[in-house]
Amino acid sequence: MWGKESSGGRAEVRFIGWVKKPGEDLAEVEILDEFREGLRGIDEFSHLIILYWFHLRDHEEERRTLLVFPRRHAVTVEKGVFACRSPSRPNPIGLCVVELIKIEGTTLTVRGLDAFGGSPIIDIKPYLPRADSFPDARVPEWTLRGPKT
Amino acid sequence: MWGKESSGGRAEVRFIGWVKKPGEDLAEVEILDEFREGLRGIDEFSHLIILYWFHLRDHEEERRTLLVFPRRHAVTVEKGVFACRSPSRPNPIGLCVVELIKIEGTTLTVRGLDAFGGSPIIDIKPYLPRADSFPDARVPEWTLRGPKT
Repeated sequence: MWGKESSGGRAEVRFIGWVKKPGEDLAEVEILDEFREGLRGIDEFSHLIILYWFHLRDHEEERRTLLVFPRRHAVTVEKGVFACRSPSRPNPIGLCVVELIKIEGTTLTVRGLDAFGGSPIIDIKPYLPRADSFPDARVPEWTLRGPKT
Repeated sequence: MWGKESSGGRAEVRFIGWVKKPGEDLAEVEILDEFREGLRGIDEFSHLIILYWFHLRDHEEERRTLLVFPRRHAVTVEKGVFACRSPSRPNPIGLCVVELIKIEGTTLTVRGLDAFGGSPIIDIKPYLPRADSFPDARVPEWTLRGPKT
């Protein structure tokens, strides 16, 4: 068991698809054909959680970044990367909750995916309000300025 | 740019901490000291998104699994792994939204973390209702039976 005694554990993440067409409103996600069966039943959900890889930030310097200025929220004091949604972080994983508009074959059209074209997809999970929705969660005021994340 | 032409991209995920004390109600997450600064400002949020590694499922057989029976939801037809929260999936990443009860040094006490003790943590993100909360998201009936995920 990995734990306290062994710091620095690592594992391998595999890309299952990529952002084929980015878009603030509608975007297209393409899943590799070898993972096609994993999509069975996904159309029963209106919303999905997309985990993607900030491939442009997968560099040592960005992965060692622990403090950032969330400038697009007009924040001028440093925040920890685990206290904001900065793409510079130890694991460059992006997370967006998106609305599933349609699925055709291995192409998902979604609304609300804030990712660059070509970003690798690493996981898709169904959004379950009972587990994932906390409308009254408390946030600091600065998160309400500027873009959502 | 990784994309259509190159299937099978891979990257390295690094463990930033682990589940020190599991618990259906309260659990403790320990972040490695080298990542301590990344926690700055996290106490301004009431809820967090914890991404962890299903280390017990990080085996080739589990990672090749694309269809599962969500038995704890009493489902007897196969669903795609991207249409459920099964720990067997191409990237064994678990996701829980938790309530942050307290933080002392690098130890976070949280409510609602459904992970085994010793599970590596791979990321922590602040929960932002404006981006992450969709109380009216549509789900199939089977997801409402049994545990939340």
